Amino acid sequence: MVSSVHPPRGMRDFLPGDKARREHVLSVIRSVFSAHGFDEIETPVMEDSSRLHAGLGGDNEKLAFAVLRRGLTSEDLGRATDPLDLADLGLRFDLTVPLARFYATHRAELPTVFRSIQIAPVWRAERPQKGRYRQFVQCDIDIIGEEGPLAEIELMTATAAAVTALGLTGWSIRVNDRRLLIGLLDVFGFAVADRETVLVTIDKLDKIGPDGVVAELRERGFAEAPVGALETFLGRQQPVEALPFGEAAIAAALPDGVDPAVVADLAAIGLAVDAGQGAPVVQFDPFLVRGMGYYTGTIFEIAHPSSSSSLGGGGRYDGMIGRFLGADVPAAGFSIGFERIVDLVDLPPDRAADAVALLYGADTEPATLLRLKTELIALGRRVRLERTPRNLKPLLEQLSAAGFTELASVSAATATVDDLRFRPIGT
Amino acid sequence: MVSSVHPPRGMRDFLPGDKARREHVLSVIRSVFSAHGFDEIETPVMEDSSRLHAGLGGDNEKLAFAVLRRGLTSEDLGRATDPLDLADLGLRFDLTVPLARFYATHRAELPTVFRSIQIAPVWRAERPQKGRYRQFVQCDIDIIGEEGPLAEIELMTATAAAVTALGLTGWSIRVNDRRLLIGLLDVFGFAVADRETVLVTIDKLDKIGPDGVVAELRERGFAEAPVGALETFLGRQQPVEALPFGEAAIAAALPDGVDPAVVADLAAIGLAVDAGQGAPVVQFDPFLVRGMGYYTGTIFEIAHPSSSSSLGGGGRYDGMIGRFLGADVPAAGFSIGFERIVDLVDLPPDRAADAVALLYGADTEPATLLRLKTELIALGRRVRLERTPRNLKPLLEQLSAAGFTELASVSAATATVDDLRFRPIGT
Repeated sequence: MVSSVHPPRGMRDFLPGDKARREHVLSVIRSVFSAHGFDEIETPVMEDSSRLHAGLGGDNEKLAFAVLRRGLTSEDLGRATDPLDLADLGLRFDLTVPLARFYATHRAELPTVFRSIQIAPVWRAERPQKGRYRQFVQCDIDIIGEEGPLAEIELMTATAAAVTALGLTGWSIRVNDRRLLIGLLDVFGFAVADRETVLVTIDKLDKIGPDGVVAELRERGFAEAPVGALETFLGRQQPVEALPFGEAAIAAALPDGVDPAVVADLAAIGLAVDAGQGAPVVQFDPFLVRGMGYYTGTIFEIAHPSSSSSLGGGGRYDGMIGRFLGADVPAAGFSIGFERIVDLVDLPPDRAADAVALLYGADTEPATLLRLKTELIALGRRVRLERTPRNLKPLLEQLSAAGFTELASVSAATATVDDLRFRPIGT
Repeated sequence: MVSSVHPPRGMRDFLPGDKARREHVLSVIRSVFSAHGFDEIETPVMEDSSRLHAGLGGDNEKLAFAVLRRGLTSEDLGRATDPLDLADLGLRFDLTVPLARFYATHRAELPTVFRSIQIAPVWRAERPQKGRYRQFVQCDIDIIGEEGPLAEIELMTATAAAVTALGLTGWSIRVNDRRLLIGLLDVFGFAVADRETVLVTIDKLDKIGPDGVVAELRERGFAEAPVGALETFLGRQQPVEALPFGEAAIAAALPDGVDPAVVADLAAIGLAVDAGQGAPVVQFDPFLVRGMGYYTGTIFEIAHPSSSSSLGGGGRYDGMIGRFLGADVPAAGFSIGFERIVDLVDLPPDRAADAVALLYGADTEPATLLRLKTELIALGRRVRLERTPRNLKPLLEQLSAAGFTELASVSAATATVDDLRFRPIGT
C-alpha cells in the first residue's frame, strides 16, 4: 500500500531542504526585480476556460487542465460532445494570459507604465520526462505601456542582474527581432503564407543543425530557390559567439534588403544592456525564433552552456495585452524558467547559524522544555526539541542536514538556559 | 467589454500594495514558525481525486474543484453518470489531506517527530460572500509522531507567538478535548449513535445561544432527560472568560463522571502554554466542538473580539495521518485562517526607505537612464524610471503610495548619479 502513495503524475513534493533552497533562490530573484522597480502581483490559479482558450496561448492551450463546472447534472454529461463543454474554469498554463486579463480588469488603478513581477506556478499536462513537470514555477517580469526600447532594456538588465545575483556565469542573452526574421524570409523568397511553418522548422536549428533544417524544408516541399538561399546563408553564417555586437555587425550578418531601422533599434538595445553589465552579454542570433506567435518585435533568450534549451526568454508582444480591452497596449516581458535555473544554482545555504536542538528524556516536564525553548527563541535562536534517542548518530546527521549547528541536553537539574551546555554538531 | 473582464467568481487578484502586505504578513508568520523548529514543505495543488474523496475532508470534500481527466473521448462522456467519473485529479480543499499523503510518501526521509509548515492556497467551491473566497491561503503547522502533550503545547505556543508578532491583542486560545465532550454527552445520557448529530447542534452555541441549542435538540426529537440535563448545565455554566484556568477549575466546570485523567492532561497543556506566554491566554471552553470528525483529543481555536468566527484552529487527530500508511501515527495541527488574520493586522508597511524615482524626458537616451539606474541599484536603492508627465501630482501620489520616498530628474546634462538632485516625495 505504501508504495502506491505518490503525488499526481508529473508533480512533485518538496521536502524541507528542497523547499528552503527553492524559496531562497526565489527570494534572490524577487529582491533583484524589486530593486529594478518592478512590483509583484498575484492572480488566481484558475481563469475562465474561454479566456484560456482564446488563442493567446498557442500550443499550450491544448495542455491546459480543465476544471469541471459545479452542479453538473447527468443530462449535462449526456449532452456534452467535447470535455471542454463541461469545464467553466481551467488552470493557467502561463502567466501572460492571466496578466493580460489582470491588466484589463485593473487598468484604471495601475500606473501608466506598469512593471509587474509574477512568481507563481503554472500547469501543463505534458508527458512527464526528466526536467519537465506538470506543475512548475515561472518568474515573469513584464512592462506594460512602454512602447520604446527602454522596456526591452530594463527587462534584460533586470533579468541579467537576477541571474548574476544567483551566481551563474557563462550565460548570455541571445536577441533577435521578429521583424528581422520575417525580413530574412522575405529576402530568401518564402511566401508570406509559409512564414509560420518555415519558422517552426528554423526553430529546430539548435537540435537538428543547418543540414537538418534544410532537409526538413525540402522534404516539406518548399521551392528550391528560397531553401537554397537559406542554405547558402546558413553556410556562411559565423558562430554567434564570434560576432562583435553592434549595428554594423548585425547588418553585416544579414543579407541586403533587411530593414536598417529595425537593425539600428536592436543594436541600440543590446549595446545599452551590455553597457549596464560592464561586459558583453548580448549576442545577436539571426535564427532565434521563440515559439509563441504573439511576439511582434524584439525577442530574447538566456543561453547557458549547461543546457541546450534556454533558461528563460521573452520579447515584445504589442498586440496581446489589449485583447481583453479592445485596444492596443504596448508590452514586453521576460520569463525565467525557474525549474531549470534552480538546478544550476549553487548558492551558499541560507542556514541560521544559531539553530539549536534541545535533547530531552522521558522524565522532562513539557512545561520546562517549553520555557527553555521560548527563552532561547527570545534570544534570537531557532530551536527544535528532540527526544534523546538510543543511538545519537542518525539524529545528529539529520540535524546537521537541517542546518542545526548546536545541541544541548536538558536534565532534571536544568532550570534556566544558563544551565544548558551547548556542543557543536559536526557538519 | 471592459466591465466583463473579472477574475473567476469568488477569486481575487492582488494589486502591488495588497500583495506586498500579504507577503509581509506571511513572512512574519513563516519566520516565527521557523524559529519554533518547524520546517516548510510544499505539495502540488492537485491530489488524486480518490484521495480527496476518501472521507478525511468531511463536508469540504463536496466543495472540491474536480479536474477533468486528460484524453477523454465522447464515449467516456456518454458513459459517465457522475461528474466525478470524469475527474482523476482535484484541487486540494485543505492542507491536511495533502500532508497525510505527503507523510505516507516520504516517511522514511523524515525525522521521527516531524514538524511541518505549510503556507499555501486551498480551493473550495463555496457560495462567495463577504470574507469567504473560493481560493484562500491557510498557514498550517503540524507535528507528526509525537503522542505526548508536548505536541499541543508547541503548536499553541508557536501560533500564539505568530499572532503576537503580528501585533494582534485581545485574542485567546479556547481549548477543549473531544473526549471531554463525548464524556459530557454520556453523562447527560445521549445515546452513542446520536453523538455526532448532537455535537453539530452544540457547535452552533455561539450563533444561536443556549436556548437555540436546546430548542433545536427538542425539535429534532431527542429524549427529554438528556436535553434537560444539558439545559441545566448550560444554565449554570459561567462565562468562559470568568474561569480561572487549571485542573480544579476545569473539573469544577464539568459534571461529575467526566474522566479526570483527560481533565488533568488538558489543564497541564493550557498551563504550560500560559507559562510560556507570561500571561493567561488559554481558556477552557466545554462547548468547543470543531467541525472535523477526525479529531481524537485536544481541540483548540483562536478567538478574537473582532470576529465571531475563529482566526484559526486545530487539534489532535491520531487516526488520520496513518490512513494512507495503514498504521496509526500520532499527529496534531494548528491552522491559521490567513484571510481573516490579514484583515486585522496593522503592521507598519515594509517599505524600502531608499526607493527612488528617476524622472526623464523624451530626449533622454535609454542607455543613460539604464546606467544611472544600475548605479543607484548598486548603491542599495530601489529605482523606478518614470517619464515626466504634464501633471506631476497624480504621479507623486502613486509613487508615494508605492513606497517611493525620493525623486530626481534626469536632464541632458546628467552624466553620473552625482549630478542627480534628490527631492523627498511627500507622504
